[in-house]
Amino acid sequence: MQVIKTLAFKFRPAKDLLLLDQTLLPKKKAFIPIENPKHITRAIKALKVRGANLIGVTAGFSLAQYAFKNPKAKNLKSLAKQLSLARPTAVHLSQAVQKVMKQKSPSAKLNQAIALYEEDKKACESMAKKARPLIKTGDGILTYCNTGCLATAGIGTALGAIKQAFQDKKQIHVFVCETRPLNQGSRLTFWELNQEKIPCSLICDNMTAHLMSQKKIQKVFVGADRISKNGDTANKIGTYNLAVISHHFKIPFYVVAPSNTIDSQSQTGQKIPIEQRAGKEISSYWAKHKTNIINPSFDVTPRHLITKIITEKGYYIDRI
Amino acid sequence: MQVIKTLAFKFRPAKDLLLLDQTLLPKKKAFIPIENPKHITRAIKALKVRGANLIGVTAGFSLAQYAFKNPKAKNLKSLAKQLSLARPTAVHLSQAVQKVMKQKSPSAKLNQAIALYEEDKKACESMAKKARPLIKTGDGILTYCNTGCLATAGIGTALGAIKQAFQDKKQIHVFVCETRPLNQGSRLTFWELNQEKIPCSLICDNMTAHLMSQKKIQKVFVGADRISKNGDTANKIGTYNLAVISHHFKIPFYVVAPSNTIDSQSQTGQKIPIEQRAGKEISSYWAKHKTNIINPSFDVTPRHLITKIITEKGYYIDRI
Repeated sequence: MQVIKTLAFKFRPAKDLLLLDQTLLPKKKAFIPIENPKHITRAIKALKVRGANLIGVTAGFSLAQYAFKNPKAKNLKSLAKQLSLARPTAVHLSQAVQKVMKQKSPSAKLNQAIALYEEDKKACESMAKKARPLIKTGDGILTYCNTGCLATAGIGTALGAIKQAFQDKKQIHVFVCETRPLNQGSRLTFWELNQEKIPCSLICDNMTAHLMSQKKIQKVFVGADRISKNGDTANKIGTYNLAVISHHFKIPFYVVAPSNTIDSQSQTGQKIPIEQRAGKEISSYWAKHKTNIINPSFDVTPRHLITKIITEKGYYIDRI
Repeated sequence: MQVIKTLAFKFRPAKDLLLLDQTLLPKKKAFIPIENPKHITRAIKALKVRGANLIGVTAGFSLAQYAFKNPKAKNLKSLAKQLSLARPTAVHLSQAVQKVMKQKSPSAKLNQAIALYEEDKKACESMAKKARPLIKTGDGILTYCNTGCLATAGIGTALGAIKQAFQDKKQIHVFVCETRPLNQGSRLTFWELNQEKIPCSLICDNMTAHLMSQKKIQKVFVGADRISKNGDTANKIGTYNLAVISHHFKIPFYVVAPSNTIDSQSQTGQKIPIEQRAGKEISSYWAKHKTNIINPSFDVTPRHLITKIITEKGYYIDRI
């Protein structure tokens, strides 16, 4: 039987799906069995599985497998709907659910889910190759949140491009932003980079202007959750800060994302829904006291602050 | 006997000095007795007492009181030297130690220490008054780190100006940046504002561009640890990020600091020493694994990004 295995999950198409619980990293590596789309809906909401591409791919697996194992289930449509609404900002989740549900037979659903996985994996490799000319030896590269094996079905988007440069023997140093409030940078990206022995330093999100003024950073690479037709880019909260600061220091700001991140329904970034999450993610102490905590999970960086958007097909936005 | 008491300390000149342990806030209010300048040197290094002005004032108290109680002590000079080196960036600590040590008799030392306290308290009030024209009803005001009663001998610098506006019955809303890695914003400023019932929201440091793009913020007020002669301003790490982003959105960026923050020895910000602190402040997990963590405690914002510097004497830098 075919087994699909990455750092983030194990999938045996007609049998089981296990997801690495990313909230426990880097302290503990534990897998969660997903037997029902309800399980993955909960896991996505709790960020046990996260990353725009990865939630799409694993949601597809879960839904298709449930349909395959329970061909007579009557709740598939409502499960699919709940699943597609688990997180609103990234475009991949609802796309994957729609594509899987469009297929009539359970086995066609399963094939579609596997195809989504294979597409994403291949897109990661292509993006890394397309980004090759953008990184050179000696570069200090800043990255944000997690855009690697824990966010995609493959080597990653922004982090994939960085890993490619390291594999190409370019001497680089990666600066990893903590990424508040949930520290996907310090917990996940720093972990991935250390596992692969890529030279890197951990910093707080608020240290970027200081480091850029000291000329330690030559390039910024980030991923995306949804890109509007005009190039405005929704990504993890704090990306907009980074883009403004990079622009100030005239440092190239690159977005790496597969072409299915471009949402032709969104003409500009203004229409992209921004998920608001619980205040306790920032401070459990104050959340208990019911004081006002603002916690948008994403922001939208306007196209004019983006140097290039790199997809598997080439550059979507391309400024010199 | 005279008792000097603020939110941050209790001082009975010839008797005792108690410091509020700020590392335990907001969960616990506990005081540390300071019987020897060594105690306060340790407390300053561990950030149990912090804030540029407050560490100057309380260091002065401790040194003068030790001299007064132990007129024959031979280690005063070496204790003073260690104390003045406890934190290098803020100018107030070494200034206060120098001023107290310049006085010959123990009672003159004590009087000098009390004078430093009174000057700082008065300067806070004057700065708040000078900043009055800068805040109007309806303003959303962003502030950073802690610059209130827990950072000065009085009502504060930047936070003092904000409190003054609230006392003047202006309708304002304060956005408090968490201030990584040690969360002086979420632990201390948010606590001070909630105690005084000033409307406020807690945010992460990386949410500022998002909120500014939504026009929620009209002014930014921060403090300073050392200002060079040309106006370059050293303050808590992340201030530079904020200044760049405010500049991008054309939002006034105000620095509020007493005139003794201006260091005539530093022509520009390049000469200001930046304290590097332990990586475990950012991540105890990674620090254990001895991976690379960068943790500068301050950054230097260049003068051209600052709209005004407000001191008790008036505006030092003044742009429209």
